[in-house]
This record gives sequence, C-alpha cells and structure tokens, in this order.
Amino acid sequence: MTGDYLAKVRQNSPLVHNITNYVVMNYTANALLSAGASPVMAHSIDEVTDMAGIAGSLVLNIGTLEEAWIASMIKAGQAANANRTPVILDPVGAGATVLRTNAAKDIVNKVKVTVVRGNASEILALGDQAATTKGVDATHGVERAVETARNMADQLGCIVAITGPEDLVTDGERAFKIQNGHVLMGRVTGTGCTATAIMGAFLATATGDPLNASAAALAYWGRCGEVAAQTAKAPGSYMIALLDALYTISPEQLSADAKIEKVTL
Amino acid sequence: MTGDYLAKVRQNSPLVHNITNYVVMNYTANALLSAGASPVMAHSIDEVTDMAGIAGSLVLNIGTLEEAWIASMIKAGQAANANRTPVILDPVGAGATVLRTNAAKDIVNKVKVTVVRGNASEILALGDQAATTKGVDATHGVERAVETARNMADQLGCIVAITGPEDLVTDGERAFKIQNGHVLMGRVTGTGCTATAIMGAFLATATGDPLNASAAALAYWGRCGEVAAQTAKAPGSYMIALLDALYTISPEQLSADAKIEKVTL
Amino acid sequence: MTGDYLAKVRQNSPLVHNITNYVVMNYTANALLSAGASPVMAHSIDEVTDMAGIAGSLVLNIGTLEEAWIASMIKAGQAANANRTPVILDPVGAGATVLRTNAAKDIVNKVKVTVVRGNASEILALGDQAATTKGVDATHGVERAVETARNMADQLGCIVAITGPEDLVTDGERAFKIQNGHVLMGRVTGTGCTATAIMGAFLATATGDPLNASAAALAYWGRCGEVAAQTAKAPGSYMIALLDALYTISPEQLSADAKIEKVTL
Repeated sequence: MTGDYLAKVRQNSPLVHNITNYVVMNYTANALLSAGASPVMAHSIDEVTDMAGIAGSLVLNIGTLEEAWIASMIKAGQAANANRTPVILDPVGAGATVLRTNAAKDIVNKVKVTVVRGNASEILALGDQAATTKGVDATHGVERAVETARNMADQLGCIVAITGPEDLVTDGERAFKIQNGHVLMGRVTGTGCTATAIMGAFLATATGDPLNASAAALAYWGRCGEVAAQTAKAPGSYMIALLDALYTISPEQLSADAKIEKVTL
Repeated sequence: MTGDYLAKVRQNSPLVHNITNYVVMNYTANALLSAGASPVMAHSIDEVTDMAGIAGSLVLNIGTLEEAWIASMIKAGQAANANRTPVILDPVGAGATVLRTNAAKDIVNKVKVTVVRGNASEILALGDQAATTKGVDATHGVERAVETARNMADQLGCIVAITGPEDLVTDGERAFKIQNGHVLMGRVTGTGCTATAIMGAFLATATGDPLNASAAALAYWGRCGEVAAQTAKAPGSYMIALLDALYTISPEQLSADAKIEKVTL
Repeated sequence: MTGDYLAKVRQNSPLVHNITNYVVMNYTANALLSAGASPVMAHSIDEVTDMAGIAGSLVLNIGTLEEAWIASMIKAGQAANANRTPVILDPVGAGATVLRTNAAKDIVNKVKVTVVRGNASEILALGDQAATTKGVDATHGVERAVETARNMADQLGCIVAITGPEDLVTDGERAFKIQNGHVLMGRVTGTGCTATAIMGAFLATATGDPLNASAAALAYWGRCGEVAAQTAKAPGSYMIALLDALYTISPEQLSADAKIEKVTL
C-alpha cells in the first residue's frame, strides 16, 4: 500500500543529503522534517563524501547552479553510488541555459542516478528534444515528454518522473500516472524541488520496487497539495499548509487518497 | 489606472531574472509567483547572459554580496541593456561597508539601470552624501535623501525610488509620493528587496511611462502591507499574509486604494 | 529578572552580524527582527571587518560550510575581538564531517568566543569525545555532554550551551538548566541556529553577567516554543507561530514563565 512507504519514513527518519539550490534550501529542509525525515544540506567538495557516507539517500538539484557545485554533485553522487544509496536528480532549469543543460547531462553520465524528476520542459531538454522553457517553469504538458522519459529511463537504467498537472513515473517499461495535486502548488516556489526531496526520503527507506516508492512519494506530495487547498486559498498560507499536511496526513489516509494508476506507454 | 499595471503582470506572467541575496531568495521568488510573475534566480557568470536573454527584466540586489557576484551582475546587466530589458538595482547595505558602496557605484557606472530603489541611507551613500546606516536598515528619513535622489536620477538618467514610512519615486523632473504601507513591514526581512522585485515585474510588462509603473509597484506592495495588517498582528503571520495579499488584491482594488500623489521636488 | 534582557533588546535594537548557513538565513533574520534586534548577514572576506565594526555582536554558524567562509569567520571573529563585541559560535554538524569538526576547532583556537552553543553531539565532537551524529541532528542526550561542556568552558574561558529537550549553560563553574521548550521545535529547521542568533541579540545588549544573559536567551526561545504550541499543531504553522511569539511575549511574561534553575555540575 502507498502509505506503507510513508510509515517507513516516519519510523526510520532517514538522513537525506541535499545539494540543492539556495531558493529552496529552507523549504525542502522543513518539508523533509515535517514528513518525518532528517535533512542535511552540505555542498562543499571537502565534505560531500563524508556526508554521503552517513546518508540514506542523496538529492542533487541544479537550481542556482555554479561551476564548483557541479563538481561537488558528481563527487557526492559517486560516493553515494559506492555506498549503493539512491541518488535523485532534479534538473531545475535544464533547457533554460547551456550551463544547466550541460550540468544535468554531465551528472547523469558520471553518476548512476536512481531517479530523474523534472517538469516536461526539463525532461525534454535533458533528452535533447526541442523544448522551450520559461526559466524554471514548464511550457510543455507532461504528455509531450513521455516518449523522451521512456527513452531516458531505458538508456540510463533509471526511473524518470515528469511532474505537472498530473505526474508520470516510468522505468522505461512500466509506468504510473499520479493524479493528486492542486493548481496552487504552481504558485509556491520549490514545490517541484520538494517533490524530488520527498522522493529522496521515500527511496532511502523503501525496500523492494523503487518505481512504486517513487509513485508513492509523488502521490503523497500531491495529496498534501489537495489537503492544503482545503484551508488555504492564497500562496502564502498555502505554502505553510503544505508543510502542515506533510505532518498530519497518516499512512492510512495516504493509502486511501492516493490516485496512482498503472498506464501503458 | 494603477491597477492596470498589475493586470498586465497577471496576464503576461513575465519572467523576472533575479541576482539577489541569499536571505530573500525564497521570499522574493514566492512574492513574484504570488503577484503573478515568473521568477528565476541565476547568478553564475556562466549562465547570466542566457538567462537575461529570455527574461523580461533583471533585478540586481547586492545583499550578502561577494566579489564573484559583482562581475555576474555587471555581465547580466549589460546583457539586459543589449536586449533593452529593464534593470532594477537594489543597493542593499550601501554605506554599511566599502564593498557594497563601491559595488553599487560600479554597477551604475557600467550598467544602464532603469530604477534604483533603496532606503534613505542607501540612496545617500550611493550619492556620496554623508550618511549613517545600521547594517541594512535605514537611519535616515526619506526626506533627507530627496535631493540626492533627484541628482542621481538626473545624472544616471534613471528613476530613483526611496522607500520608508512613505515612499518617493522620481525621474529627476517629476516625482510621486506613495503613502501605502504599514509599520510591521519593517519587522519582516526583505520587504525592501521584495519591493524591488515587484518593480521588476511591473517594469517587465509596463508600456509607456516607467515612472508611473514604478509608483504603481510601490503602491501595490504598500497596499499589501495594509491588507496583511488587517488580519496579522505579529511578524511571522504578517510575512505570510503579505504573500497572500499579493495574490488576493485585484487590479480594481489596487486602483481604488493606491495613495499616489504627484509632488514637486 | 530574565525579562530585563529582552526589554533591553527591544530598547536598543542591537545590530547582530551573522555569518551563517544558507538554510536558516531568512528564518534567523526574521527571528531577530521579530525579537526586536536588527540583523545583518554578510560573509565576504572583503566586508566582514567593516560589518563587525558596526555590530553589537557576531554570530558564527558553520552549517553549509565551505572553505572561503571559514577564513571570513575567523577574520570577522578577530575584528569582533578587537572591538570587544561578543562572538557566539554555532558548530552545526561538528562530528558529521571532518571539515566541520576541524573548522569549529580552528575558530575557537583563533577567535576568543563568548559562547559556544550546540546540541550534545556537536559539543561532544568539538570536545574530542567519541560521539555519533545524524547529520545536523543530535543522537545524544544533553546529559552525555555536560562533562565535555564544563571542560571546554574552562579551557576556552567561554560559556558553553548544550540545547536539547532541556538546555544547559555553563561557564565551567556555575551552570543553569533551562526547561522551556517544546518537542515540535525539532521539526522546524534552524531552531537551534535561531537559539544561537537570539543569544547574539541578548549578549549584544546585556550588561553584567553573560551567563545569565545566555540562560535568559534560551528561556525566551524555549518559551516561544511553548507559546507557539498553544495554537499551532503542525510544523509549518508552528514555524510561523514561533516567529510571532518572539514578538508578542512581553518581558514581564518572560520573567514569569522562564524555567531557569541553578544546578551544580
């Protein structure tokens, strides 16, 4: 059941190592704490190996990127690979600048990633497909990127998640559509980055099929979006209600409300 | 009408490129999203030209400054100039340290800025007037800096905005006083920086007179301060209510409640 | 009385210079503003001396550390020493990585610190005691680190504060236990860092015994945790209620509700 993954996060409180962007560091740390995980942010090339060594998963996020951080991400990723801990990549803004597109490609070439999660524009850019983007916001629907995601999953041997009005995760063979979520999530910065971080928490504790764990993480965060919208009607209070929902939703409620559907690609 | 500028932001959702300080990155990104704009934060010298190329305006903010960022700001500013997109400068903490005063001067010398927005102490420092400051907080009233602002506007051919208990914007010839706002805004970090970012959104979509657009942006943010104070009585909840107000205030309400008055310098 | 320290912060609104981590910059700035202090964040080696020169205290926090920041912290610390302004050190994540453990030791060797505040795992690591840690979260109870704290206080001639379910401050000779606080504080990122920053505000304005001022600061923040829990039941809204409580608690209420007890080591 979907909620079992959440229950495991709360029982084990996994340490999730994030090398992420300045904009969302506070919010994703709070989201992980609220979900029941234990976040740590550490990006210096001088300590990422140490931190990767004690963490249950590694989240790499290329927003507000600069050169030195790419090297740290690759070093951390390779340490995580050596430890067989999952690596989750968020190619924020891939397609918007050459630096980000190339960095994302460099990372997937040098690090074995478990999951790549992006919006449709980012997945298309990473897959070398013609795509337009508005900075860090998608200008394409999820549908447009499904084929690219499948190929990328095949080629890299990883899971690819495309998030948007509805989400899709695939390992190249199987695929799930997740229909939880709310339009106000698009008015809060870092809700995509937070989805990635929560996948980090779920994959750190999941046993068995990582595709199911990935779908469960997206359903959980999407469900938070729905619950938050029950009380909050504008982005400021909504942003806070999202954090609250991460804490208040029970595993049982998540199992009941998750809208995960198997689809054929 | 004042609200028309807001309506345009919501219709066009302009991409606002921010090179800003660590303290406010999350808050200003959320403020821009809540207002209806699309924020992107990108500071690496390797990508600022790409990002400036797709953005509708550029916001430069020198809080938490370091050497490498100054070069990025100048490069981004020159790219924005080449694209004829507006550049808005926030000289956070000018006057507090030599690094910041010199950086602000360097930027206005090398980049054609559309607007400079600061508190009175910052404007005085940038204008080489004797001024004291308390880190990033003003120790002078807006009145003290009016003459300096007029001269600066003349010299740089830009708009200068001084914000404080009441705000003043001038292009050196004409001037407006804006009387929206609330004292609690001084208890939330980055409300000045957010004013600057919102000017970025307004100027990205405004046609015609940028002085009017600048005044409208300040009235909008000041009005948010008034609306937020109707429900929130302490800085934490007030900070969130400000973000909500950016979303809930309609263009019509803004036109009705804006307190913008033409003044002679 | 405990509340007198808070009254002084509100009267004098001290400038607190922070060189702190990316995750908490916004939150601690807002906490300091809400408490009545005036925060500034500045980390560049080119301006820390200027900023230390106008500040009432200096807060050094090694979360999200990188090499260049260590040099800035030491330079700022030495400038603060020269100005006889208090220096408060937060060794975030000491024990988790060699970089952080060594940086914390390097700072206390080169800068005369007034207070070191950490969780039990960090204090143990800084005192060269065998300790385990979970990234930035403690895995030891406060009791485990008391002996280490006393020795460190003696050796460095400073105050050592260990925070956790209950807090302890000691100057090596005398000690206080502080029993204010709430379990939800552990679900908000940076509540430890914020405790350190508030100590910075209290020490900037305190006359007389810094040990009393340190205990008062911890009681104040712990009391905020209790007040916040009266209305907020989940981490998002709790994080905001904490900021509100910093503003709404009066000096008289703090004196009445502080649970500070003298203990023998």
